[in-house]
Amino acid sequence: MSTYMSMEHLRFLLHEVHNISDVLSHEKFSDLDPESIDMLLDAAKAWTDQEWHPYLKEMDEKPAYFKDNKVYSHPQIKKIFKDAGENGWISMYFDYEHGGMQLPYTVSLAVNHIFEAANNHVTGYLGLTSGSAHLLTSFGTKELQDQFVPNMLAGKWGGTMCLTEPQAGSSLSDVKTSAQPLENGQYKITGQKIFISGGDHEATENIIHLTLARIEGAPEGTKGISLFVVPKFRILDDGSFEDNDVITAGDFQKLGQRGYSTVHLSFGEKNDCIGYLVGEPNKGLSYMFQMMNGARLEVGMAATSTATAAYYASLQYAKERPQGRRIEDNGRKNINAEQTLIINHADVRRMLFLQKAIVEASLSLLIETSVYQDKFASGPESERKNYHLLMELLTPMAKTYPSEKGKQAVDTGLQVLGGYGFCMDFILQQYYRDVRIMSIYEGTTGIQSIDLLGRKVTMENGAALMLLVQKISEIIDEASTFEDLKPYASQLKKSLGKVQEVLMKLTPLAMNGDYELYLSDATIFMDLASNVVIAYQWLKMALKAKHALVTGTGKFDSAFYESKIHTMKFYYKYELPRVYSCAETLMSDEALTIVNEQSEILV
Amino acid sequence: MSTYMSMEHLRFLLHEVHNISDVLSHEKFSDLDPESIDMLLDAAKAWTDQEWHPYLKEMDEKPAYFKDNKVYSHPQIKKIFKDAGENGWISMYFDYEHGGMQLPYTVSLAVNHIFEAANNHVTGYLGLTSGSAHLLTSFGTKELQDQFVPNMLAGKWGGTMCLTEPQAGSSLSDVKTSAQPLENGQYKITGQKIFISGGDHEATENIIHLTLARIEGAPEGTKGISLFVVPKFRILDDGSFEDNDVITAGDFQKLGQRGYSTVHLSFGEKNDCIGYLVGEPNKGLSYMFQMMNGARLEVGMAATSTATAAYYASLQYAKERPQGRRIEDNGRKNINAEQTLIINHADVRRMLFLQKAIVEASLSLLIETSVYQDKFASGPESERKNYHLLMELLTPMAKTYPSEKGKQAVDTGLQVLGGYGFCMDFILQQYYRDVRIMSIYEGTTGIQSIDLLGRKVTMENGAALMLLVQKISEIIDEASTFEDLKPYASQLKKSLGKVQEVLMKLTPLAMNGDYELYLSDATIFMDLASNVVIAYQWLKMALKAKHALVTGTGKFDSAFYESKIHTMKFYYKYELPRVYSCAETLMSDEALTIVNEQSEILV
Repeated sequence: MSTYMSMEHLRFLLHEVHNISDVLSHEKFSDLDPESIDMLLDAAKAWTDQEWHPYLKEMDEKPAYFKDNKVYSHPQIKKIFKDAGENGWISMYFDYEHGGMQLPYTVSLAVNHIFEAANNHVTGYLGLTSGSAHLLTSFGTKELQDQFVPNMLAGKWGGTMCLTEPQAGSSLSDVKTSAQPLENGQYKITGQKIFISGGDHEATENIIHLTLARIEGAPEGTKGISLFVVPKFRILDDGSFEDNDVITAGDFQKLGQRGYSTVHLSFGEKNDCIGYLVGEPNKGLSYMFQMMNGARLEVGMAATSTATAAYYASLQYAKERPQGRRIEDNGRKNINAEQTLIINHADVRRMLFLQKAIVEASLSLLIETSVYQDKFASGPESERKNYHLLMELLTPMAKTYPSEKGKQAVDTGLQVLGGYGFCMDFILQQYYRDVRIMSIYEGTTGIQSIDLLGRKVTMENGAALMLLVQKISEIIDEASTFEDLKPYASQLKKSLGKVQEVLMKLTPLAMNGDYELYLSDATIFMDLASNVVIAYQWLKMALKAKHALVTGTGKFDSAFYESKIHTMKFYYKYELPRVYSCAETLMSDEALTIVNEQSEILV
Repeated sequence: MSTYMSMEHLRFLLHEVHNISDVLSHEKFSDLDPESIDMLLDAAKAWTDQEWHPYLKEMDEKPAYFKDNKVYSHPQIKKIFKDAGENGWISMYFDYEHGGMQLPYTVSLAVNHIFEAANNHVTGYLGLTSGSAHLLTSFGTKELQDQFVPNMLAGKWGGTMCLTEPQAGSSLSDVKTSAQPLENGQYKITGQKIFISGGDHEATENIIHLTLARIEGAPEGTKGISLFVVPKFRILDDGSFEDNDVITAGDFQKLGQRGYSTVHLSFGEKNDCIGYLVGEPNKGLSYMFQMMNGARLEVGMAATSTATAAYYASLQYAKERPQGRRIEDNGRKNINAEQTLIINHADVRRMLFLQKAIVEASLSLLIETSVYQDKFASGPESERKNYHLLMELLTPMAKTYPSEKGKQAVDTGLQVLGGYGFCMDFILQQYYRDVRIMSIYEGTTGIQSIDLLGRKVTMENGAALMLLVQKISEIIDEASTFEDLKPYASQLKKSLGKVQEVLMKLTPLAMNGDYELYLSDATIFMDLASNVVIAYQWLKMALKAKHALVTGTGKFDSAFYESKIHTMKFYYKYELPRVYSCAETLMSDEALTIVNEQSEILV
């Protein structure tokens, strides 16, 4: 099997750290057990080993391209769509009634980890297809569902989400695409959408665009946005296709993820583009946000998985490349000794552990967040609200930490290879380019940070935060019962205190209405808070590892568990102390980035 | 004029911050004055505006390539070599006797800033040509100089340095290329060299390789390495060329700097490759290190300049792109208001100031280091030793800080553009790729860090460090005389104290012979020390700006000086506090990255 991720680490997280069996105990999942999940993961790995991973480099070298008003993607995409449809991967978390496997979201995200690590250029095609089909099954009429969903889940038709417009960018209140009501209840759609991932290609017969548009006369801003299904081809009663006037105006050639087409779509240039309203008018954005939460976790997962693949690529190199010699006690190197493998140089080991510390905890955070999503969606009614709060709070961090620190991890992996890391013959440079998009997709880091500090921390008077602090405190208490984990438990407690101290400082700004200042360093707050949340993941992993070592009950060997404890220590020595610098910045009284009437443009 | 760097900032540093007039007062530079330097810089800018910058994107899109045993570079390289030779840019810091302009090294580095910011794919071709010619004028016989130097400085022949070999990588003690003495005093060269920048191309008639090789029977390790001139073509008595059996075995296609050819050379496959010894046998590495110090500063400058160009590209975008609205006092955004330019969003301003803070201080550090180099090379005898120590100490930081933080700066610039930053139509993605090599070239960050902590900090019982602390303390004292700079002076003093505290902790390790542990976190020490040194650059710049504002004597307007003070404050709020986290890591007693007999491989 190809090593681009660790099945052991994934199983450790699902079964021993985050107790997927709790989720499987929900009524909805009564047909599943841990063994069936493991078999499914193995099947995903075997498939991607054979059909995904071998095409990763080629998809980069022969990117999707636009020619003569068409977009051509790598031929393997078509095969993967077909296989995915036939084997149920697109519909894996859909209910039985839609032909799905009715898996927990957590399991589908774990499968996505395998997919993205194998080939991050492919997963989006499938993920947006399930995501948009899921919007239809959630909010669309039975008729709309029947018309579109089966072929999407079968991999015959692709799906997209169309939000961004040239003049609006991330500011959805400025969406201008218009929907003119027709007498038959349908709408004529006119407008421009850019950065549409998987927005055109030859891999499926049809492409179904879930599109935000404004019904004529709708209120200004986000309150006037509605959601429409706009297919590339309309389906006639006999099942044949009719062109729906969705033109691909061009494509975006990108730094990375070059196998994944990104296009500019023009709707209704010939005034013949029909859209079908999904749900009620003017509620489009709230519907889209159901999908956005998932999409954000999936981007976090794409970042985690790409950085994981980079970690294993650099680890393999470090284990095979001899160079130089270790420093001896006299401070010199014995030139007559054989060269050592570079993994034995302290700085190289530091670079490997840094990657491991980032990627393994990123995965843990994503799984914790998705478990909360499952417990919210299908768990006991009485617990749902709390899990919803936790999921909402963790989502921006689970998107951002892996995206931002994943960049650093891949950068570090490239550095392990020295000059070879910069060469196109080695895969690190591709991961370096691929991972760069993740902190931009689905809301940039700046936007996620404002979401975290501006909405999630404050929602319900800080209830979500209190729940999270409680979760973290439980792990601190439990870890403190092991003498050798105690110092780390204390360090986490102190770091958590820093977050609270910072919030004591910041909250009055929001209370006094100085929101711009309150949010001005949201990105630094994101760094602070996610560092603590990742440290919590590491302490939890170390605690479970310690348990397994002490009781001898774990499924893995002792080296596996020791490596978790060691990497936790690494994180606490090298990464967690960054909370002090972030806190120092956030506690400062200086406002240096806000434009005011007095300030000139000093940049 | 194209804006890819700031002539004002460069002049401010040369004239007001680092007093280039001190250097110009050296006997050697009696023909120069500040005005002539400014004119020269203007000429460099005008030339690069016209002949360099417009080709930057094209050189990336149509990279140098290897075909039929030849390497083809962009045609503009040939024109630039010719113009550079004719106008004296290659020989600018050479003495009059070699036909040079006899400029201070600092001025040539300032010119390099303009060159690299305009087009970082070109400068290396010229820089290695002057660097290798300079090795010849420093250590070669008159005969060798006469044979090679004039044509190199005229831009007719290129020059390279050939160090790295496939089996040795950064470990020069493992160099195997062999030199077999012939009766006529020449040598037959046999061996393989990789990663040779500018190692083959069609832009010059001949290429002169300054090559490290081992004379048969020489001692093992670095003490047995000699330096040879190995031309691509030997020059016959009538001036005609004869093939010298230097074969280009292939090229390296790279992530960035794609216009700059990088090749694998094979010497003496037909046993007909002649090399000429430079200087004495077995002293090759010490000669090469004369060039390496300069090369390291030039890489730091390439990183600084690339990141500077990226900063200006993102600044321009931020000033032109309307998107979203500022947050109002009620915490909402007025959707009826016009969109604001993104430069008015606090997080975007933060990203712009971060770039400015990194790139402007990087330039300042490089200029300070090169002024010390000039004062060492041509200043009064009594001061030379101290300036040499300072130059030696600062060089690894002046190479590494711009390379490492330059990556972050460019990454931040790309983020300012959001999705467009990831698109090939915008230049940010190219700078992102180009800058990535800088922390690998001429000794990776790991190697620079070991040089800093292992050699430079300890040399002459810490004399260099004491000199630097004295320089920093002078600025702290002077800044403390201005009430509004006082808090920053205190913060710098405290941060400097952290470095000293860390060294008190680490030094006993070296004294007790535990060198591997002493050096194991050298990279973190590099981060700590260079952060303080950059903070010192900012305080010095702010101090000079304050002086200019108070006395009204500066050459720039008050907004210019205010922006320096504001950016200093930004650095002290957002960047300098990282010393606390670095110090926390370095003060830890845990050794987590050293392999020992007990430890399994835990990565």
